[in-house]
Amino acid sequence: MFDKIAFLGLGNLGTPIAESLIEAGYELTVWNRTASKAEPLAKLGAKVVEDPMDAITEGGLVISVLADDAVLEDVFSMELIEKLGKGGIHISMSTISPETARQLSKIHDWYGSTYVGAPIFARPDAVKAKVGNIAISGKSDAREAVKPILQTFVKGIFDFGEDPGAANVVKLAGNFMIAASLEMMAEAFTMAEKNGISRQSIYEMLTQTIFAAPIFQNYGKLVAANKYEPVAFRLPLGLKDIKLTLETAERVNVPMPFADIVRNRFVSALAKGREDMDWGALALGASDDSGN
Amino acid sequence: MFDKIAFLGLGNLGTPIAESLIEAGYELTVWNRTASKAEPLAKLGAKVVEDPMDAITEGGLVISVLADDAVLEDVFSMELIEKLGKGGIHISMSTISPETARQLSKIHDWYGSTYVGAPIFARPDAVKAKVGNIAISGKSDAREAVKPILQTFVKGIFDFGEDPGAANVVKLAGNFMIAASLEMMAEAFTMAEKNGISRQSIYEMLTQTIFAAPIFQNYGKLVAANKYEPVAFRLPLGLKDIKLTLETAERVNVPMPFADIVRNRFVSALAKGREDMDWGALALGASDDSGN
Repeated sequence: MFDKIAFLGLGNLGTPIAESLIEAGYELTVWNRTASKAEPLAKLGAKVVEDPMDAITEGGLVISVLADDAVLEDVFSMELIEKLGKGGIHISMSTISPETARQLSKIHDWYGSTYVGAPIFARPDAVKAKVGNIAISGKSDAREAVKPILQTFVKGIFDFGEDPGAANVVKLAGNFMIAASLEMMAEAFTMAEKNGISRQSIYEMLTQTIFAAPIFQNYGKLVAANKYEPVAFRLPLGLKDIKLTLETAERVNVPMPFADIVRNRFVSALAKGREDMDWGALALGASDDSGN
Repeated sequence: MFDKIAFLGLGNLGTPIAESLIEAGYELTVWNRTASKAEPLAKLGAKVVEDPMDAITEGGLVISVLADDAVLEDVFSMELIEKLGKGGIHISMSTISPETARQLSKIHDWYGSTYVGAPIFARPDAVKAKVGNIAISGKSDAREAVKPILQTFVKGIFDFGEDPGAANVVKLAGNFMIAASLEMMAEAFTMAEKNGISRQSIYEMLTQTIFAAPIFQNYGKLVAANKYEPVAFRLPLGLKDIKLTLETAERVNVPMPFADIVRNRFVSALAKGREDMDWGALALGASDDSGN
């Protein structure tokens, strides 16, 4: 249905996604705030534009992988959405507030285009390996129309129905659970370590048995070594996500005591100058508190 | 090396373990405080005794799967350990305080016998399916001598060295992580639910993707349905374990904020009359707090 795609946002995740789409045969027009990041894609044959408006075609498809709510709202101006217009579809892959997704969806409705929420669970290497997973929600026609496109670069697509904010609720819940898993391992490994057991040995047992899931195996490696480089997802982005989780929960009167603790771990990590580490570095808090 | 085993404690876990040992060809003498629970084993050929002392043979092997520290210390009197005597080995499979294990080990040393800590990660059905895992620690000769016996009924044995308390530190860390996983899912699923997403659908996505581990798949089913029956592990036992975790952590000056929250969830569950539910019912706390 769509063979041309406007692609906005070429960060750690956006770039490998755009690359996969080119590989799959789509014609991409790409835009990024920092223009230099578009160069590798230009080499693959993408058309590069300096203004996101120039990427948009009437009734076309636009995919955005932008940093946060503010950038998304800034780029998706009324003017841009009006240009996208009738029949146009916007696949929004950022982790944003479900409320922002719902508001943006209403503006799309007004101009005859459709907003589809499709945040992805994947670190950049998982995108490259095409083993990421997408939560999707939004109007059913548009959802079905874009699934074949998304399927070219992920393992699974999980459908959460009509509410344009639903996919982001799921994404926030998942990211909260990852952050909580980091804290959980940090507390357990530190307790073991100060009892004379190596962090590595308890990591190995638990992640080969009852916690044999990618999150524990991959992030657990960082927590076992207490090293949070190289950076796949910067710590301030983790704080952003946990704040969105707490806001989304508070809006429907759900207290989340674990999320409160995790939020404070991130805030404290910033206080200690850890803003350039991977978000896994929230796990250093348990070591700090234990005098390690 | 040992073909006769004294087996003390025939609860939910003890019974299937004893059954597996009989199947594997060992000659068992069994004892349980409530004698009627020994009947099924008598039918399989086990010798049943009314006093644990009568199960013990000098220089022999005794396996205990007793409820808690107090019962273990009560059954393993000085008299009993003296009778076990030189060359005897005690495999202690209960989840107890590492400190209790270390103390008991010293008494064994005095009488020439050896204490081996070997708590098992498995619910009763996992024991039956022989997919449980054991953390083991204690003196190296004894540890190596008993591994072939344990291997008859588990999938993996993970060795944590000489400290007789180490295996129980690992077991407590693991049980804490299970309890924290329950709370984590409870908060995430409740947040999703009050945003209009079914608990079942978010459970399915997360446990088929980044949280595809037995703990999340099995316990997540309970949390998704918010039903905590049938009971595999009673809630008061969960509180016991988290209290042991906090004690073990405090002894080495490790604060565990997640464990504090989990402890309060258990205490509140008792206040609400949930003592006969599975320990997964700690997850009801997040629903209660959200007015669900």
